[in-house]
Amino acid sequence: MNTKKIVARNYRGTRDWLGGEVYLRQQVISTLCEVFEEFGFEPLETPEIELQEVLAGKYGEEADALTYSFRKGYDWIGLRYDHTVPLARVVAQYEKELIYPYRRYVVGPVFRADEPQAGRYRRFIQCDFDIVGVAEPIADAEVVVLTYTALKRLGFKKFEIQICDRRLLNGIAKATGADTKELTLAFLRSWDKLGRVDRKQIDQELKEKGASPELISRFFEITDQLLRLEKENILDELSRFFPNQPQVDQGIDVLEKLLEYVASSGVPFQFYRVNPCLARGLDYYTGPIFETVIKEAGIGSITGGGRFDDLIETLGGPSLPATGSSFGLERIISVMKKLKIAKTKKTNTQVFVAVFDPESTESMKKAIRFTSCLRENGIKTELSMEKGSIGRQLRIADRRGIPVAIFAGPKEMKKGKVIVKDLTTPLTEEKKDIWANQWEVSEEDLVKKVKELLD
Amino acid sequence: MNTKKIVARNYRGTRDWLGGEVYLRQQVISTLCEVFEEFGFEPLETPEIELQEVLAGKYGEEADALTYSFRKGYDWIGLRYDHTVPLARVVAQYEKELIYPYRRYVVGPVFRADEPQAGRYRRFIQCDFDIVGVAEPIADAEVVVLTYTALKRLGFKKFEIQICDRRLLNGIAKATGADTKELTLAFLRSWDKLGRVDRKQIDQELKEKGASPELISRFFEITDQLLRLEKENILDELSRFFPNQPQVDQGIDVLEKLLEYVASSGVPFQFYRVNPCLARGLDYYTGPIFETVIKEAGIGSITGGGRFDDLIETLGGPSLPATGSSFGLERIISVMKKLKIAKTKKTNTQVFVAVFDPESTESMKKAIRFTSCLRENGIKTELSMEKGSIGRQLRIADRRGIPVAIFAGPKEMKKGKVIVKDLTTPLTEEKKDIWANQWEVSEEDLVKKVKELLD
Repeated sequence: MNTKKIVARNYRGTRDWLGGEVYLRQQVISTLCEVFEEFGFEPLETPEIELQEVLAGKYGEEADALTYSFRKGYDWIGLRYDHTVPLARVVAQYEKELIYPYRRYVVGPVFRADEPQAGRYRRFIQCDFDIVGVAEPIADAEVVVLTYTALKRLGFKKFEIQICDRRLLNGIAKATGADTKELTLAFLRSWDKLGRVDRKQIDQELKEKGASPELISRFFEITDQLLRLEKENILDELSRFFPNQPQVDQGIDVLEKLLEYVASSGVPFQFYRVNPCLARGLDYYTGPIFETVIKEAGIGSITGGGRFDDLIETLGGPSLPATGSSFGLERIISVMKKLKIAKTKKTNTQVFVAVFDPESTESMKKAIRFTSCLRENGIKTELSMEKGSIGRQLRIADRRGIPVAIFAGPKEMKKGKVIVKDLTTPLTEEKKDIWANQWEVSEEDLVKKVKELLD
Repeated sequence: MNTKKIVARNYRGTRDWLGGEVYLRQQVISTLCEVFEEFGFEPLETPEIELQEVLAGKYGEEADALTYSFRKGYDWIGLRYDHTVPLARVVAQYEKELIYPYRRYVVGPVFRADEPQAGRYRRFIQCDFDIVGVAEPIADAEVVVLTYTALKRLGFKKFEIQICDRRLLNGIAKATGADTKELTLAFLRSWDKLGRVDRKQIDQELKEKGASPELISRFFEITDQLLRLEKENILDELSRFFPNQPQVDQGIDVLEKLLEYVASSGVPFQFYRVNPCLARGLDYYTGPIFETVIKEAGIGSITGGGRFDDLIETLGGPSLPATGSSFGLERIISVMKKLKIAKTKKTNTQVFVAVFDPESTESMKKAIRFTSCLRENGIKTELSMEKGSIGRQLRIADRRGIPVAIFAGPKEMKKGKVIVKDLTTPLTEEKKDIWANQWEVSEEDLVKKVKELLD
């Protein structure tokens, strides 16, 4: 073993999650999975490593530059940037084995070599769900309904699922004067950046893409009009604003159906709306797109997704429509903490078995037998491995937040008794009455007494 | 988007896990985590990416060559090879914040650029648990007891936890005539390879490390004697075989205590034994080592671990003893399948809501409302998004293995009724009585009837 000493640290933009933080993550993930399953989605697990040819050229230039890719032996490989491209690969690869609509969820890390910022990591967990094989807006509506159900289940009281459509945006871009594919894309990227970067920068970027000053000023004029539209009649207004634009009409038709289905599902109106400036950054979207925003959180979107009808074919698969969305675990937890709806706990362990005399094999074996007995009864139990006194051992249990401790000294052992101690009243430095709140019970009654205290 | 078509495939040595396979993986992982928590271990999550300086030189030459490492920007990074080195880094990094003994478990992928074989992947899931801060054999005993408890809980009836000790092995190597560090290491590696490669190859490798023909023949002689030792008195025999060897005595003392504690925990004797030729491949072990073997499975070990008292210090941390072990998810599942103790299921979805007329918005909205109602009652429900007839839709439900389907035609809708259908009698091509096994109930009784069928 190489024994050169180093300073232990993480790769920048990644971090560790310890104890209580992991409980919180587990709880959010299990709530999300519960909802995915309730909606009839099945799990999928794909590897973190993909062939570079699978990842390359799917997301757009900016994202491509942020993909981790490298060579090992003869293979060019990379770390997945999201779960959508791997899903498209899976559908292309297992086309004949899958039953359509293929409804799958996946939870796992994705990797982006982004500049790390507060709350933005290079490795983070995405929880995705998608429906493959349905072109109709009922599938997009299901995405919105599931998003609503999951966020409510997590305890969020106020959020807004914003909905738009890429065809609608393309149509508006065209009506505004974007007459090339490049300019249309530039408009979409500009809408995506609204509110995140200032208008001067957007102006500059549009200029670089070849937009004339007149076109740019028209872009901002239209954008301001879009932002002023009222939520209630927004689709009618859009249709009035951009008459005779087939893509606009197509987008509006789809969004109308989508909203109708979402309403039928019982999602209250205040939780969703059409945002005509929602564009999303990735290249592969083709229809409805979604994002969830919590204004109070000031952190950007906590969910995001959309329809990607062409992606599977690009990966060598059949032409199959698909739609879905993604929950960002770290962002959701960060908002839950901010809103004080995150339920944290220090430990799951219920009982700490202290050893009266750690130097004595007999004392240790007695403690081992208590431990086995409690565990066999399904009680989460830690066996003390500290060499110090009972008091020192109990302090470990106390610091961990374990509610009950037990132990037996020679006196108790002789009588077939054991001490059961309630640790929920914390020990303080001033009040060191570590012998308080405890009961002597017979060994047979140990499990009963412990269960009583835990209830 | 780059629309060049490719053939969708995995990076060699990695694979996808779909539907039913993932349920099985989830079930095994949740059983293991249940046992980890029962034993008072807390969770830890570390990133898949580590700095190369953390990974390098910890495992030994062979393993180092199998590590995925690459450069991104100014950073040399790599994918974790196991969970032990990241744990040691975490302890070094969070030394002051942790409460000792630090008992943590972790479940996640590790990566090894090994030559793929049946059942050997380049990306696989390891489920590790370790105790940091305890030098005494009680911690090693806990590792054995947990391993036993978890494997029993998973349904294994017959397995053998093999135990040895690195000091014992070093002592035996010395007594056999290995008088340098290189030769000692070569002996350990040779023992590790016994049964996996033939003796000619071991002979050749020892020669290359500088062992004389006499030493090599003595190595095989001693090895054969070790293999013939009887399980019952093995520690006494070893002590008799290698007198006045301090390292041998030290190893034996530790193993004696360890076995005594394991017995006290109630682990039956047939589930564990000392194997004096168990060496394990990694460089960082310093004391007791463990492996679980299921002879009937013919797949090598399904768990493996050991004590690593020096590793944390190497990573810039304090001098803290540590011990633990790892369950290999893919191997465990492969053996469970072989032994037919793996419980598989096709789906978790309980109800399929068919849509009588998918072209009619009214029919669709009715189905949406049924779906919402069932989901609100915690019933896992898929809403049909197939455009075809009811019969075609029901066939999807049937292929998925969903036990119950419901739908309402115009006749039922007028009466406020709904059809509930039991799909557990599979539809065959010959017997297409898709209208069998069904009941008409009032909409209010829907949930009740469905629950009745599911029970």
